[in-house]
Amino acid sequence: MQTEFLASCISILGNDFVITKEADQYPYLIDWRQRYRGKALAVLLPQTTAEVSSLVQLCALHQVACVPQGGNTGLVLGSVPDQSGQAVVISLKRMNRVLAIDVANNTVTVQAGCLLAQVQAAAIEQHRLLPLSLASEGSCTIGGNLSTNAGGTAVLRYGNTRELCLGLEVVTAQGEIWDGLRGLRKDNTGYDLRDLFIGAEGTLGIITAAVLKLFPQPRAQITAFTALENPDAALGLLKHSQYALGPTLTAFELISDFSLQLVLKHFPQLQHPFGRSYPYYALLEMSDHESESHAIALIEQVLEQAMNDGHATDAVCATSISQSRSLWKLREHISEAQAKEGKNIKHDIAIPVSQIPRFIQVTDTELKRAFPGCQIVCFGHMGDGNLHYNVSAPVGCSDTDFILQQTSINRIVHDHAHQLKGSISAEHGLGMLKRDEIKLYKSDLELSMMRAIKVALDPQNLMNPGKVL
Amino acid sequence: MQTEFLASCISILGNDFVITKEADQYPYLIDWRQRYRGKALAVLLPQTTAEVSSLVQLCALHQVACVPQGGNTGLVLGSVPDQSGQAVVISLKRMNRVLAIDVANNTVTVQAGCLLAQVQAAAIEQHRLLPLSLASEGSCTIGGNLSTNAGGTAVLRYGNTRELCLGLEVVTAQGEIWDGLRGLRKDNTGYDLRDLFIGAEGTLGIITAAVLKLFPQPRAQITAFTALENPDAALGLLKHSQYALGPTLTAFELISDFSLQLVLKHFPQLQHPFGRSYPYYALLEMSDHESESHAIALIEQVLEQAMNDGHATDAVCATSISQSRSLWKLREHISEAQAKEGKNIKHDIAIPVSQIPRFIQVTDTELKRAFPGCQIVCFGHMGDGNLHYNVSAPVGCSDTDFILQQTSINRIVHDHAHQLKGSISAEHGLGMLKRDEIKLYKSDLELSMMRAIKVALDPQNLMNPGKVL
Repeated sequence: MQTEFLASCISILGNDFVITKEADQYPYLIDWRQRYRGKALAVLLPQTTAEVSSLVQLCALHQVACVPQGGNTGLVLGSVPDQSGQAVVISLKRMNRVLAIDVANNTVTVQAGCLLAQVQAAAIEQHRLLPLSLASEGSCTIGGNLSTNAGGTAVLRYGNTRELCLGLEVVTAQGEIWDGLRGLRKDNTGYDLRDLFIGAEGTLGIITAAVLKLFPQPRAQITAFTALENPDAALGLLKHSQYALGPTLTAFELISDFSLQLVLKHFPQLQHPFGRSYPYYALLEMSDHESESHAIALIEQVLEQAMNDGHATDAVCATSISQSRSLWKLREHISEAQAKEGKNIKHDIAIPVSQIPRFIQVTDTELKRAFPGCQIVCFGHMGDGNLHYNVSAPVGCSDTDFILQQTSINRIVHDHAHQLKGSISAEHGLGMLKRDEIKLYKSDLELSMMRAIKVALDPQNLMNPGKVL
Repeated sequence: MQTEFLASCISILGNDFVITKEADQYPYLIDWRQRYRGKALAVLLPQTTAEVSSLVQLCALHQVACVPQGGNTGLVLGSVPDQSGQAVVISLKRMNRVLAIDVANNTVTVQAGCLLAQVQAAAIEQHRLLPLSLASEGSCTIGGNLSTNAGGTAVLRYGNTRELCLGLEVVTAQGEIWDGLRGLRKDNTGYDLRDLFIGAEGTLGIITAAVLKLFPQPRAQITAFTALENPDAALGLLKHSQYALGPTLTAFELISDFSLQLVLKHFPQLQHPFGRSYPYYALLEMSDHESESHAIALIEQVLEQAMNDGHATDAVCATSISQSRSLWKLREHISEAQAKEGKNIKHDIAIPVSQIPRFIQVTDTELKRAFPGCQIVCFGHMGDGNLHYNVSAPVGCSDTDFILQQTSINRIVHDHAHQLKGSISAEHGLGMLKRDEIKLYKSDLELSMMRAIKVALDPQNLMNPGKVL
């Protein structure tokens, strides 16, 4: 049975693209943070939508589960197979062609296996901007971005990946090809299948291609870094800068002092922007269609007003691209600095923006009471209400002992997010990692509607089983 | 059976809010354009979500179909009952409370029966903008806007109603209440049920409340009107102004000379902006967070450049709110002017923005060949690729004779939109009117996925049956 199935896979893809040796499968089986390693019957590497379709039909016939995989950079174990060894991984990485750019329509059509950075570069060649931007952009693929509805640093202005997608091509659980590759800003002709496949983490079908929105490139991007007394000040600064800058405010990132200290400790070539510490910082980015001088004048005016109003304690504005890059590095290196420091318990919560100060205050207090000495690495996309609120071991406590507390720590953080009508996964998805956790917070009704849709579109439960639901 | 059902309805709502007399039901039975009048067992007017829930449970028990209704301003017969007289209309119009505004989160929570204009006004009181804006805003409701994913004049910058909604409360087909009233910019915890109910035209459940996005109010809104030689020039102007103005370009509307002439004929108090005719016009709106003088200087620079580059032949910029209103009226009165002129065959197509000149050229030519003398009223939201490409009778041809050609005319217009990978319903939905038409253009696979979802969520087919599918 397995032999027959694998022989059919080889007849579709050729020998080179059906990987059955475990050693060769390794990068497809292990997750990005190297915490989990699954097993697979085979790793399949199709190059065309027709091949994906044939493979999925074969899987449906033989009742073989499929794990669709892009760059395999996810953080919730959504793109690796489980321990059964009975599933196949279908990697889209050979489907990496930019199919078309329609400059006047501001759209790009890409195969799902394109790297995000590759599509960003293709857009820039046409003086266009693909605003999706995340730490893993050199490794993650568009198909993965869509399947997890990736967020990143420009959501404040441009929305999540969902908002950047106009159309999809999908291979369904039955192996049929749905051509929904539309480049339309408006189309009200029935149920929104596109947004159902987006964010479904490959459990309803395999996204094979997409039409993404592009934007005219702004003439200037200016970065500013501000020192803040507390999260309340951050909220005041956000409100003021949104009013003054409108949609030209393209990023607003919060960074706690402890997060910044970690970066400076592990990346000594980076410099503190102020030479002294403040409790919190915010990084602002403004994108301007007029000119660099206009942008600098405007953002300096905003910062001066913020200091007069008591929102910001100090502020610097990058006056060159290299200065701007240096400020962004302080934000971007937080995750890596944490990893160098030791193990930490990660969270990816979202709450209403207005509740951020309250969330930080209440959760900090409770964590420090329950786990004296624990260290909180609080940073994130404040403009979107999304915090990566991570917790590290107290000084002197071993990582191993600390990780045993994971469930209790998750409970405190997630309970507080939930009490403030928040989410326990803002931009990372559920995968295998949060599949059970979500049952504590989502209503039975919502879960049962999700299951009904899963059964409707994948009645054999062969698409990425055990993820999300 | 019916008596028992109606008695139960009365026990839930009281006598006053169960309308069974046909004369009193009239406004709930007839569509906005007064072309279709259905029949209903009763019109039900609940005031709370709990009442809606009880009514839908009752309907499920008695197998009575429900037609959810908001302002009943739709154009595709989505909110009126059919001829059977066996369905109930559930009007949400008594559920018209603004529940909360979270200024720092830029969100408003409303009951579904709120008028759009009422929510716009509530936002303005807090110096916020609800950017959804359409001709029927004084009569349409938020529930209807969501159920049809309404578009309007600000989609270019802010997206459709879908993009403006963060959370929903829905009464399911089983009468259960789904509390998805989240005010989050990011939430990746499972399938996107929100976007499935949005645009489903009441066929999957009844939207009873929503959380909508607000924006800081811009400091200035400037309107400009430009004269153009042809749609190619419009495309050039759009591209240039998007590059120069970025997200501050909030509207870009195309108007053919024939459309403008109709408005001037039927609204003689309005004035031609240029004193002479040009083949096409574009109305631009810019929203600026800096100042009125900044906005005017910038848009004048854009217009001057557009004239130098040959995109625009002439241009005026409103320098007062009343001038701006007058320019907008030229655009907003087109539908009414058409109605005064006589019957016309309406279309609501979307195509990639880049294909608009080609669509107009090819479709104009074919229509004029097939129906000599027919008059084309071409206007719409060019920035979104959405044209209201309407067709009126040739001079001397009776309306009655002309309307007989409707199917052939639809076929030409819709075929051309489809050939350019477009949509036959950009912002109006399908309702009963386009339910069969869509089968010509949508793949069997897509229709079968839609049916599978309908069966999964409404297995008894009681939610607005006969609409969409």
